[in-house]
Amino acid sequence: MADILHRIGATATAETVYDALTTQKGLAAWWTTDTTGDGVVGDTIRFRFGDTGGFDMAVLDQRPNEWVHWKVTDGPAEWIGTRVSFRLTRQDDYTIVLFKHEGWREPVEFMYHCSTKWAAFLLSLKQFVETGTGAPHPQDVRISNWH
Amino acid sequence: MADILHRIGATATAETVYDALTTQKGLAAWWTTDTTGDGVVGDTIRFRFGDTGGFDMAVLDQRPNEWVHWKVTDGPAEWIGTRVSFRLTRQDDYTIVLFKHEGWREPVEFMYHCSTKWAAFLLSLKQFVETGTGAPHPQDVRISNWH
Repeated sequence: MADILHRIGATATAETVYDALTTQKGLAAWWTTDTTGDGVVGDTIRFRFGDTGGFDMAVLDQRPNEWVHWKVTDGPAEWIGTRVSFRLTRQDDYTIVLFKHEGWREPVEFMYHCSTKWAAFLLSLKQFVETGTGAPHPQDVRISNWH
Repeated sequence: MADILHRIGATATAETVYDALTTQKGLAAWWTTDTTGDGVVGDTIRFRFGDTGGFDMAVLDQRPNEWVHWKVTDGPAEWIGTRVSFRLTRQDDYTIVLFKHEGWREPVEFMYHCSTKWAAFLLSLKQFVETGTGAPHPQDVRISNWH
């Protein structure tokens, strides 16, 4: 098993960051504009990225301003069954996001790509909660031939 | 053991990317302007980041336009003994960089930070080889309270 880990800090309240992770409007502002569903435990959120497909995430658990846990129920074969989590803490004047995408069976090249792409999207999340404007798909940063 | 993985693709030749990984001038243009030493096998390259310290990397092995392997010989305790590698391939019109920072003993919070920071620096590498201008320290992207 292999995990993708990231850490960002945003000069925004934990409430603001939590909202960006648990509402359709928030998620659409930093990950993909084509997001369907809110972050309610037991529901599934659909994220789509045009021709490249997308992911369905079941919301496993969450606690306001503290954490969000998702499980991937549809998408690329490598993603199905993996879990994504965001843990929020306060340090100095920052809300810190500890991100984990865990349970990859093998460290395939696609995992290398997803790791960098997650970093770009988490910086989009930071930008969104700090300024009101993120860089969600289709305005996301191109990192390679795989986009 | 835990690893940091990343993948970027740059519209530049493998020679250009390899030079950016194996010359003082290249490394200083995307990672830190305070870089001492070229990338010659057996040598140690010193990377410094102002008050936050830095890293010494022993060049273990490299093959022109294909790969670079370093070992961390000085720096934060969590980094010492870990290994950093860059593997280059060509796909479509891109030079792909598969990056690995392997051998972390524990997935500590600092590892989460370093993973995201590596992504930002690899995007600086991409920008440098494509445009001639990167974002090395001290012009690097701030990602959190840890910078």
